[in-house]
Amino acid sequence: MVNGSANPAAGRLTIAGLGPGALAQVTPEVAAALQHATDVVGYLPYVARAQALWQQAGAAQPVAWHASDNRVELDRAQQALALAAQGRQVVVVSSGDPGVFAMASAVFEAMEHAAPATSAAWQALDVQVLPGITAMLAAAARAGAPLGHDFCCINLSDNLKPWPVISQRVRLAAEADFAMAFYNPRSRSRPEGFVRLLELLRAHCEPGRLLVFARAVSTPDEQLTVCTLAEAAPEMADMRTVVLVGNSTTRRVGRFTYTPRFYGVPADTSSLGSTP
Amino acid sequence: MVNGSANPAAGRLTIAGLGPGALAQVTPEVAAALQHATDVVGYLPYVARAQALWQQAGAAQPVAWHASDNRVELDRAQQALALAAQGRQVVVVSSGDPGVFAMASAVFEAMEHAAPATSAAWQALDVQVLPGITAMLAAAARAGAPLGHDFCCINLSDNLKPWPVISQRVRLAAEADFAMAFYNPRSRSRPEGFVRLLELLRAHCEPGRLLVFARAVSTPDEQLTVCTLAEAAPEMADMRTVVLVGNSTTRRVGRFTYTPRFYGVPADTSSLGSTP
Repeated sequence: MVNGSANPAAGRLTIAGLGPGALAQVTPEVAAALQHATDVVGYLPYVARAQALWQQAGAAQPVAWHASDNRVELDRAQQALALAAQGRQVVVVSSGDPGVFAMASAVFEAMEHAAPATSAAWQALDVQVLPGITAMLAAAARAGAPLGHDFCCINLSDNLKPWPVISQRVRLAAEADFAMAFYNPRSRSRPEGFVRLLELLRAHCEPGRLLVFARAVSTPDEQLTVCTLAEAAPEMADMRTVVLVGNSTTRRVGRFTYTPRFYGVPADTSSLGSTP
Repeated sequence: MVNGSANPAAGRLTIAGLGPGALAQVTPEVAAALQHATDVVGYLPYVARAQALWQQAGAAQPVAWHASDNRVELDRAQQALALAAQGRQVVVVSSGDPGVFAMASAVFEAMEHAAPATSAAWQALDVQVLPGITAMLAAAARAGAPLGHDFCCINLSDNLKPWPVISQRVRLAAEADFAMAFYNPRSRSRPEGFVRLLELLRAHCEPGRLLVFARAVSTPDEQLTVCTLAEAAPEMADMRTVVLVGNSTTRRVGRFTYTPRFYGVPADTSSLGSTP
C-alpha cells in the first residue's frame, strides 16, 4: 500500500493550473512541480503548454508526456492516480484553475469510485492541488473590474447538468443581482445553449446591462468585446470564450468596464475631494 | 495631457494581484511589473510582501514605497492615478486578485469621480490589471475541489452593502444550490455578521452541508478546518479567513472535500471500469 505522505520514495499527484494561456501567468510553484515531474497527464493542448513551460524552466529529468482527448477526464484522472500509486511524480495539468470546471473534481471523482483493490491506496496518496489564474479573472482583468462586487460562476456545458438547472440558476442569479461569469458558452455540438442563455438574460435583465466577451485571453488570439445585452449576439461566443455579465450597477469609465464596490449605500466618496 | 498608450515616456498604472500570501503563488508578470516600478502603492502588509518579491527579483532601480492603512482605498487609488499622470511607473498592489473585492474597482471609481481638470488625463492613462490567485481558489485547492461546480462569491463586509442585500443573496444562492465563497466573514468591528450568516445558512441548507474554513492560506499561519454546518461555530472565522460552503452534493473522499462536476444527471462513470 502506498502512503505518499509517510514514504519519501512514494508517488505524488499534483493537479496544477496553467492559467489562461500565457506562461507569464503561470505561478512559480506550478513551474516547479513540472520540473520535478516524471509524468505529465492532460488534454493535448495543455500538455503542449506544459512542455513549453518545462523547456523554459530547463528541467534536466526526462518526462513521460501523456496527452489525451478532451472527453476522457475520468480516464485521465484514473491514469494519473494509477501512475502515482506506482511511485511516479505525476502532474495533471489543467487550463485556468484546476478547481474551476477542470481536472481537480475529476480526480476526486475517480478516487471516490475506485475499485476496492485500489481505493485505500489512492486515498492515501500525496495529492496536491495548485491553483491557477482562472479564465473569468483573466478576462475581468482585461476589461477593468466587472467582477468587483458579488458574482457567480456558471458552467454552460449542458452534458454536466440539465438545462432547467442552468435556467433556474440564471434566473436566481439575476434576482440576486450577481454579476455572472459563464464558462463553455458555446460548442459546435450544442450551439443552441448560448442562444437560450441570451433569451433568458433578456427576460431578467435590462437591455443596457453590460456584457464582456473575452476570447482566448492572454494568447495571440485574444479578443475582447464589450457591449450591452441589447447588442449581444450568439456569434460573439465560441468554445474559447468566457462571457461576463455585469450586475445592474456595472458601468463604463473611459475604455474600462467595472462594478463598484458599494451597493445600495452611498459610496464613500468623502475623500474624493481631498488632495492625494 | 498625459496619454500613456501613445507616449512611451508617459506614466503607467498597473494594478497587480499578489495572490494569497506565498511568493510561489505570484505570477511572473506581477514580479516583472514590480521590477519596472518607480512607485508601489498599497496597504501596508501588501507593500511589505511586494518588497520581499522585489528583493527576490533583484531589481536595480530604486522604488518609492507608498504604504497606507486599510480603510483608505479611494485615497490610495487617487494617489496612484496622480503619480501615473505625472509620468511615474506605478504598481498598486492587492492581495489575491485585484478584481475580487480589492483595489481594481477602487481605481476605476476614483477615475470615474475624478475632478474635471484631471478626468481626461486619468482615463487616457495606460492602465493594466494583472490577475492573481484569489483567496477562495487558493482555499479550495487546499481542501480538494469544493468549488468544482457552479458557485458564487459574496463579500460579507457590510460597510459595502446593507445586510438585507446580503441576506437575500444568500437565500437565492442556497435556492440555486450554488456552492458559496464568503470573503471578510468577520472583523473586530462587526463580529455579528458571521453569526447571522450561520443562522441564515441553517435556515436554508441541511445540517450536513460541508463548510471549509480556510485561514491565511499559503502563509505560515495557515489553518484549514472542514466541518458540517451543524458543527460550524462563529469563532472558526476571523478577518484572515475565507469560508467556503459546498452545494448539496459536496462530499468527502479520504481527507479531501470536493463537489462533483455532474448535477441532476448520472455521472459519466462508464469509463470507470476500463483499464486506465
